[in-house]
Amino acid sequence: MKNDLLKRVRQAQPIVFNIANRVTPQVVANAIAYIGASPIMGEDIEEVPDLVKIAQAVTLNLGSTSQRVQSVMLAAGKAANAEGKPVIFDPVAAGATPLRRRRAQELVAQVDVTIVRGNLGEIATLAGFDWQAHGIDAGSGQADPALIVKKAAQQLKTIVVATGPSDLISDGQAIYRVDNSAPELATNVGMGDALDGLLGAFASQSKQVEEIAYAAASLPVAGELALADGIAGPADFLNKTFDHLANLTDAELSAKIKLSKVENEG
Amino acid sequence: MKNDLLKRVRQAQPIVFNIANRVTPQVVANAIAYIGASPIMGEDIEEVPDLVKIAQAVTLNLGSTSQRVQSVMLAAGKAANAEGKPVIFDPVAAGATPLRRRRAQELVAQVDVTIVRGNLGEIATLAGFDWQAHGIDAGSGQADPALIVKKAAQQLKTIVVATGPSDLISDGQAIYRVDNSAPELATNVGMGDALDGLLGAFASQSKQVEEIAYAAASLPVAGELALADGIAGPADFLNKTFDHLANLTDAELSAKIKLSKVENEG
Amino acid sequence: MKNDLLKRVRQAQPIVFNIANRVTPQVVANAIAYIGASPIMGEDIEEVPDLVKIAQAVTLNLGSTSQRVQSVMLAAGKAANAEGKPVIFDPVAAGATPLRRRRAQELVAQVDVTIVRGNLGEIATLAGFDWQAHGIDAGSGQADPALIVKKAAQQLKTIVVATGPSDLISDGQAIYRVDNSAPELATNVGMGDALDGLLGAFASQSKQVEEIAYAAASLPVAGELALADGIAGPADFLNKTFDHLANLTDAELSAKIKLSKVENEG
Repeated sequence: MKNDLLKRVRQAQPIVFNIANRVTPQVVANAIAYIGASPIMGEDIEEVPDLVKIAQAVTLNLGSTSQRVQSVMLAAGKAANAEGKPVIFDPVAAGATPLRRRRAQELVAQVDVTIVRGNLGEIATLAGFDWQAHGIDAGSGQADPALIVKKAAQQLKTIVVATGPSDLISDGQAIYRVDNSAPELATNVGMGDALDGLLGAFASQSKQVEEIAYAAASLPVAGELALADGIAGPADFLNKTFDHLANLTDAELSAKIKLSKVENEG
Repeated sequence: MKNDLLKRVRQAQPIVFNIANRVTPQVVANAIAYIGASPIMGEDIEEVPDLVKIAQAVTLNLGSTSQRVQSVMLAAGKAANAEGKPVIFDPVAAGATPLRRRRAQELVAQVDVTIVRGNLGEIATLAGFDWQAHGIDAGSGQADPALIVKKAAQQLKTIVVATGPSDLISDGQAIYRVDNSAPELATNVGMGDALDGLLGAFASQSKQVEEIAYAAASLPVAGELALADGIAGPADFLNKTFDHLANLTDAELSAKIKLSKVENEG
Repeated sequence: MKNDLLKRVRQAQPIVFNIANRVTPQVVANAIAYIGASPIMGEDIEEVPDLVKIAQAVTLNLGSTSQRVQSVMLAAGKAANAEGKPVIFDPVAAGATPLRRRRAQELVAQVDVTIVRGNLGEIATLAGFDWQAHGIDAGSGQADPALIVKKAAQQLKTIVVATGPSDLISDGQAIYRVDNSAPELATNVGMGDALDGLLGAFASQSKQVEEIAYAAASLPVAGELALADGIAGPADFLNKTFDHLANLTDAELSAKIKLSKVENEG
């Protein structure tokens, strides 16, 4: 696959407005900056319209939900919709508690989300499918993952990016699979949140599903490059992955990505 | 000392629900994930009962106290008590301000805490002994440290883990000392908070005081392994320590731990 | 330039009370600890007077502004003024939204700030000059940077530290330029916030403008030392820079600093 999306992001230097969680904002901000975009965060509802105005994408994260943050996220999402700017939503641990599920569903009901990014369990929960969550981890379910992702995309009217040992990306019609992965991406808390931020940067340049799959591969490809260097453990992995992310070129990403289209009749 | 507590944690993959402070949640979450457990955080009082329900341990941190967070911590602690799940409490800087001391004492008065983890000054303050604090650092006092820890454990009816150049662990009867240490653990902000999270994971498997001493040694032993590698400075130390923590085995921990029982008549 | 300010900081071990933003508190706290000072954070307005009392400097950051945090910052700033303790203020992204500009201006109007630290755009905005911001980045303007900094210092009645490819430092009379820099300081989110914390530690020992210029050079000099080691990317750079910061001596800083006095008639 040949693509120049990374180059386009670096030329555009889009501002990504993040309403992040309280745990991982530093890695989210750094990931966005490392890829060549510009992160901004803020939670005062009064300035939300202005922050959306200067941003080229908005990323929303359910991780540290509260009634107040929910209001801010809804306002940011609606403002982004009004301005035609992409909205990325991460339903963190949506299956872990009824409150999170309700808030996640409220958000997708009221905001026109461009990309929902989560693990398979979060995606399944958000779309109302049966799933057994394990805290912030994926948990387990029985249906065909590719079909879950496709049907969730149809139902939610978004692109779905479900990350895990393999990533599945669908716009409700086509399904792509990215087979790049590194187990240490799951050991480091916040790598999904970081990817949300990256997807914000990429989605400011393209909402085409195959390009989003290409974008989603940026982090696991960087992780594979880190593994190829040899790592002493998950902290060393994180540093090396982020360095490879910063140095990643379209030529390298295009060469390393293991992208395939999933045949389906769903 | 032979023990298989690390293995038990990794097999159980306990979920540790953290009400962390605003400064160090990323290192807390990573430490828990690196040891093989699963962190979850949340602060909406409405979902506290549900988060306690899915968790195997609850860790509470006074670092970013507010009336709101205090209410959430009290609710989480009481819910954990009702379900018989271990509660770890860290009275961060309890001696630094009257407000913190009052909130810390309110928490131990209303919640049945399994382990209190702090530096010697925080422990002394919480138990009402005389101590001169220095911000978030330990400060200095005159009484025999082992006796302070034992009497604090008796008074608070918990296991006390007092960390510093040596760690002292007591359930109010026995006193254990762990002589593993690395000065860079104090230079990196949040290592105590990370240990709180680890103790949550370990305490989900055992509340036996000698095993808690073994658990408390996991981080300083990892630190000593980092020092043995050679470090360029405290940031390099942190990465190497966390990598050793992730790779640590019971065989290694049992071989490296410098654990002794303190004779006492207190 | 010969100076022993680093040594003085390490001997005094000042406590720096930070009202930080939600994104970068970990790097701020670590930077302060690495330089040999002691960070403390807190946001409960009830304990602000007590935290100011035990601190030797107060650092305020606009990054995660809200009405509540603004009240806490105003209270902390006024308490520091009452006790004659230095106040460092960082008007993060002051030019990005009207709300931030208003809050930043309210703060400098009500608090006697010792040092304002920002990029040139934030400084220009705070002082009311014309400037085009780009999110949290500096953006661009047309006036002479040295003159902007000097005039801003005059108008705000503070020392201004404007950081960028070159740093400019002025007390409204003299202007100093520090030509040490590393581009990766801008790629890593929070390096400015970290410098704010360091300036708090330094300002507890000196408010003399040339010494503040020396203090401001600590981070870019550490960055240059990291670059001289060779770096794999921005994450590796961050670790190495922080290690050099922790190991930095006055002899090394004095030898490496590229400090010059800017001739001016403004």
